[in-house]
This record gives sequence, structure tokens and C-alpha cells, in this order.
Amino acid sequence: MDQNFPKGSRARVIIVGGGFGGIELAKKLRHQDIDVVMVDKHNYHTFQPLLYQVATGGLEAESIAFPLRKIFKGQRNLTFRVAELLAVDTQRNCIRTSIGTMEYDHLVLATGSTSNFFGQQEIQANAMPMKSIPEALNLRSLFLQNLELAQIEEDPQTLKQLLNFVVVGGGPTGVETAGAIAELKKHILKNDYPELNIDLVNIYLVEGSPEVLGVMSDQASKKAMDFLKELGVTVMTNTRVLGYDGKILKLGDKADIPASNVIWSAGVKGVIPEGMDPAVVVRGNRLKVNEISRVDGYHNIYAIGDVSAMITEEFPNGHPGVAPTAIQQGKLLAENLMKIMENKPTENFKYRDKGSMATVGRNRAVVDLHKIRFQGVFAWFTWMFVHLMTLVGFRNKLVVFVNWVWSYFSYDRGTRLIIRPYVKEKLNEQRTIE
Amino acid sequence: MDQNFPKGSRARVIIVGGGFGGIELAKKLRHQDIDVVMVDKHNYHTFQPLLYQVATGGLEAESIAFPLRKIFKGQRNLTFRVAELLAVDTQRNCIRTSIGTMEYDHLVLATGSTSNFFGQQEIQANAMPMKSIPEALNLRSLFLQNLELAQIEEDPQTLKQLLNFVVVGGGPTGVETAGAIAELKKHILKNDYPELNIDLVNIYLVEGSPEVLGVMSDQASKKAMDFLKELGVTVMTNTRVLGYDGKILKLGDKADIPASNVIWSAGVKGVIPEGMDPAVVVRGNRLKVNEISRVDGYHNIYAIGDVSAMITEEFPNGHPGVAPTAIQQGKLLAENLMKIMENKPTENFKYRDKGSMATVGRNRAVVDLHKIRFQGVFAWFTWMFVHLMTLVGFRNKLVVFVNWVWSYFSYDRGTRLIIRPYVKEKLNEQRTIE
Repeated sequence: MDQNFPKGSRARVIIVGGGFGGIELAKKLRHQDIDVVMVDKHNYHTFQPLLYQVATGGLEAESIAFPLRKIFKGQRNLTFRVAELLAVDTQRNCIRTSIGTMEYDHLVLATGSTSNFFGQQEIQANAMPMKSIPEALNLRSLFLQNLELAQIEEDPQTLKQLLNFVVVGGGPTGVETAGAIAELKKHILKNDYPELNIDLVNIYLVEGSPEVLGVMSDQASKKAMDFLKELGVTVMTNTRVLGYDGKILKLGDKADIPASNVIWSAGVKGVIPEGMDPAVVVRGNRLKVNEISRVDGYHNIYAIGDVSAMITEEFPNGHPGVAPTAIQQGKLLAENLMKIMENKPTENFKYRDKGSMATVGRNRAVVDLHKIRFQGVFAWFTWMFVHLMTLVGFRNKLVVFVNWVWSYFSYDRGTRLIIRPYVKEKLNEQRTIE
Repeated sequence: MDQNFPKGSRARVIIVGGGFGGIELAKKLRHQDIDVVMVDKHNYHTFQPLLYQVATGGLEAESIAFPLRKIFKGQRNLTFRVAELLAVDTQRNCIRTSIGTMEYDHLVLATGSTSNFFGQQEIQANAMPMKSIPEALNLRSLFLQNLELAQIEEDPQTLKQLLNFVVVGGGPTGVETAGAIAELKKHILKNDYPELNIDLVNIYLVEGSPEVLGVMSDQASKKAMDFLKELGVTVMTNTRVLGYDGKILKLGDKADIPASNVIWSAGVKGVIPEGMDPAVVVRGNRLKVNEISRVDGYHNIYAIGDVSAMITEEFPNGHPGVAPTAIQQGKLLAENLMKIMENKPTENFKYRDKGSMATVGRNRAVVDLHKIRFQGVFAWFTWMFVHLMTLVGFRNKLVVFVNWVWSYFSYDRGTRLIIRPYVKEKLNEQRTIE
């Protein structure tokens, strides 16, 4: 036990991870007579749905991050620590972290997910993930650095490679990223780089399944495909990525693509600490939980959000890995934890589908709200409104709103800056310290 | 000569540095029948007067940076390159850069200044400079990391060290930084860190001369001193820093201060490339120029802004190292360069003093406008107005304005985020790649 952080007489709940689920849970425990400890490796919450706008120069990093200490300002039963979770000691009911050991009565893993490269190490070493703010900033720097290199490149093959942008994965993140790069090309690049032959800039979206946005309705998938084509994105469905050495993207039965800019958004996997029984880890590296989010085989360890797989008849592959799932699970777990402590019967999770949406570009978005489906301008405004409202913090809402209004009228993106150059040799290090 | 970048038949002016002076000069050459090449190691212009607000979590980095390519959008006679200047070959009229060699007919060095540690290597290795955006972000990360460390520190001496903030140098930057940290303490820290004994947080401003803001009027100096004291800053004038090992700041005849947070704003020196005759380098590592900004001893090399020392009867130590000097020199040089090319008589520089101002904190600023001097609330609004108007880019103005209005009413600062942790071992590397 970390010496200056003794466990008091009250029950202690440790929550690891300040994402949507962890925050909701911690807030809902505000008025309870227990000790809550929130641990996160960052001192801020990341609004992941807008990471792609940071990467493509549309938003400042700070506008989609929010200080965790501020979220819990005035919550007297909560202690916050910036620390990395190293392992769980399930026998002794404690976690080992980068700043010491902490005992728990109840442990909630809300550690989220990271990019899944499905064991393909060459791809992992060379393609760019986009699951955290430092990763998004690395991407932004890499794009801009490659555009600068293209200004002085004479070899046509290398030039092509520098100007090819490939997004792997046709889910919402992949579609939004490909669309954003296409709009960069359309509105920004020809002004910013007058020496550049803009026709050489090509954007590809590579997806293994037969359609993009497979999780959404057919109508949304088809319309998103149309939107991407209108914006000039080459969509390659039914296409598998076999390898990427940093220069050539190898595809299954299609021609290779030379590309210096490859964004990996093909899948995620749960972030599970050491010490958990491998038997409870299911597909996607997630922890199998029951309907009150308790991890199978443990009596006082819970998992919510992306790191959890709550498998039910309705959701045989687990619930969707989206913010509403995490938030709803966090909220219910707060109630159930108190019921467990008071020996009252718990309540099972019931997912309320909030619908899904994705934006492809200016005036082009797709929205599925149960039976109501719409696409285009109104969907785009809906998307913006929902994201603004979900963003944590009034200042962040204001700054993002200012940026969006500005971009809408000026066709501009303000933050195409190489603040920290991306140096590939530092890849592994960067990932470690991010 | 960089092969894909041949010099055409027109005269070529190379401007190194996209600060206030370089931008003004390049813009004013917009309609001339010459080739202008702008070279900068960053792809953005930095608004240095607000770096301290980035460092203290008041502003996002992106709001005080502006893409250089965008500034010159549509300027057909200008080519922009991200490149580091390595050396000047004054014999062959070319510069060596990180991306190749470039020939010039006229070379303008607008390379600005960097922190001056006056040869004290131990201090340079351990104190934090604040002259660029990456440096300001490093500072922000360091402050926040030390506050997190203070949460779990048990040794009283180390705790004291983690919570002592020392600003060295009582010029405008030092005064503004010390004031901003004092306001952080007052309005933010006690809410963000409820476990912290806020009385242990101490802010020192150390200045070698008998007063702060020595460049301003006595009235401004005295009032700034009062403001700093009101905010709880310990101002130590007539105090020299003898050493700093990262833990203990050694002072002349006063007691040492244990401090993990030491900001160095005690002076600047010009950034001079290799290849320039050492005989023309004067105090502050600046290039001695004549009244048309031509470097002594060269017929086609000019220097403007912080890297230049234009010594006249009125300014025996050179003109003030402020934005208006650089802008006015850039503007006049644009005219004089054309006159030189057309063999017309040139015009000598005449400095128009725009006054000076510094802000200490909320409602507390000092302004000297020639004979008109005022301090307090109105000075503070004047300071904000002038800085907003000088900031490059409408989007940046908007974002900064939103942040300031937000902070004014909420007493909050939105961006206290450790986006990239500051790792001291990486200091030299960080400085190189910044």
C-alpha cells in the first residue's frame, strides 16, 4: 500500500480509467458514504469521437480533452491519481500502479480499448493508430511533414508514396477520417501548397467487409459510400491488408499501394491489466462480464465500457463499443455497487440504443435513430449538435463551436501545425510515454 | 543548389524566419517582380507574447500559432520551405539548410532570439526556457507533473521543492509568468488538489537589477511590484542566480531556494547562423546593422528584429527587442530592397515607439504610452485588446477571446493538460527537435 494513501474505514471503490464509463460511475457515487479512487494514466478525459479532427488539423488537442481533476472538483469522497495500472492482485485485493500499491474493496476496470493490429507486427510498427491525443497529434505532424517533403521530392514514385493517404477500416472512425482528409485536399492543400500537383493526392479507404459502416443501416452504409465517392475517396471494400513496411501497403488480391500515410482504424481491443484470469478474456481482448458488469469468476471486480464484453441473447458479441454503452453501464453499476454493499438485490443492465451516426464531410452525414434514418445536411447538423452536447466542459464546447463555425464559412482548418515533429524511430518510445 | 528549386532569372530574396519581421517584409514584397523565399524551421508563426499563457494552462498552443503557408496563400512570388538554416556561404551567396542549398541575391536574417543563459551550463541544463511553443508545453507538463508528484510526496523537503515556483528575470515575460502562476495558485490549485496544503505553494520572482520591468517607466515598475505582492509573489530584486542543479537554486547573498520549477526568462540572445563574420556580432549575440538593416561588412545580407542590433545615438544598445521594432524594420527593408535593386537612394530607419505594457494578473496591468501612463483595470483591458488585435488570424483571435472571456467569468483555465509528459532526460533531444 502506498504509504501516504491509507485505506480508511469506509469501503473503497477503485475505478481505473477516466473515460465515459469511469466518469459516469464516479460521479454517480458522489453522495455515497464510501471512498472512491479514480486512477488514470492521463490527467485528462479524452473525447475520442473527435480525435480525427485533431489529426486532420480541424481542432486543437486541448478542445477535446478535459482535466479529470476539474470534473471531480468538490467531490469529497473521491481521490484522483495520475498513475499507470501495472497489475491486479486479485488474491490480496490490490492493484499495483506506477506510483504504488492500492487496496480495494471493489475494483472497476474502465480501461477502454486500444488499436487492434490483430497480431500483425509489421503493420503495428508502421501504420499510425489514432486512439489517443498524442497519437492524433503524431498523425497530424506526419501528414504535414510528408506534404512538406513532397514539395522537394523529385522521384515520381516517392512523390506518389508521400501523397497517398490510406485509411484502413471502414467503421465510423475510418469513414470520418477519410472524409476529413478528402476535404483537406479539396479546400486547403491547393492553396497551401501551390507547387503541388493536387491530382497526385489520393485518398483510399480500405475495408475487409463488403460495405462501410457495417454497424449502421444499409441505407446509411450506401449513402456514406456515395458521399465518400463524391468527395473523391477511393473506397476498396472486400479488401484485406496483408502487410505494411512503411512504404508499400500490401493488399490481398488487389495491387499494392505505395503510401507514407497509413491510418489504422480497423479494430480495437480491450486494455486488460496483468493478473486477470485469461479464461475470462473473450474476443477482442475483452473481459466477460455478467449483466451487472461483474467479471466472470470474481466477486468484487467489474468491467464497463470497451474493455468489457457483456454477452446477452440480444448481443451475442457483446454490447456496442460506444460511449452510451459505457455511460449506461457506469450509471447502473453505481447503483448496483451500493445495493451489493447494502445486501440488496441488484438490477440487470438494459441497453438503451441511442442510435448511431457518422459524418463524411461538410453537409454530408448519416444518422440512424432506430427506425428513423436520414442523411445529408440535416444529419450533419444533428451530428454536430450531438457531439457538441456530449463534449465535456463548457469551454471545450465553445472552442469547438467557434472552430466549426469558422471552418464552415471559411472552408478553412486552423490548426495545421507541426508542433512536435513526428519521428518514426521514436515510435515505440512515443507509444510508451503517451 | 537544391535541384528541384532552381533560381529563376528574377532577383531572389531569401528571408530566414517567419516571425513578426520576416512576415511583414515578405508580405510587403508581394507585388514586386522578384522571387521571395521564406525559410522557417517550423511551419507556423509563433505569437511569443502569449507563450506564458500556454505554459500556465490558459491557452491552447494552437491558438497562438498560425500556419505560415496560410499567411502567404496566394502570394505568387513567394515560395515557403520548412527547413533549418545550417550556415551562410557569404562568398558564394547561398545558404545551406536541412533540405539543401539555396542561392540568394539578397539574404535577410530574421532568425529571432533564444534564451540566453549567459554561459551558465548547469542552469541551461536544468532551468526551463519559454521561447517556443514546444518549450511552453514542456513547462506546462512539468508544472502539472510536479503537482501530481506533490500529492504522493511524504518528505517535507522534497514537497517544498516540488511546490516552489521560481521565475528568473523581471522583464515583461517574467512578471507576466509569475503573475499567472500566482493566479493559478489562487483560483485553481486549491480546487484541483484538495489534498494539497496550498500554503506550501510559493512563487518567487528573482531579478538581478533593483527593479522589475526596468525597461518601463518608474511608475509602471513600482505598480507592477505592488501587483505582484498583492498576488502573493515573493519578489527578490538585486539578486543574482549562481547555479541550479534541478533541485536547489543558488542565489548570491540570499538563502538557496529548493525548487523543481524554475523558469528562465532572464535574457535572450540572437540566433546567428554559422558563416557570419564574428567581428559583426555585438552584445546579446546580435548582428550589427546600419540604419537600413544591412549587416556591417556585407553588401547583400540584412538582419531585422531580435537578431539585429541597430545602434544609433538614440539607441546606444540597439533598438528594443519587441515586435514593433521587427515589424517596422521589415516594412522599411521591403521598400529599401526595391530601391537598392533599382539603384535609388535608400531611407534610414526611424523607430516609432508604440509604448509598452505588461499584465500581472486579472485587472492588473501597466501601460506606458509615451507620456501617458496608466495601471490597473483599464490597463488590463488595453493589454488584452492590443494583444488580441496583434494576434495573427481571425480564428486565433476568436479562440483566445473565448478563452479569456471564459476565464474572466469562471476564474478557470481550461487547458491544464499533460498532453506529452516532460521527461528531463530528453531535454537536449527535445531542444534539438523542437
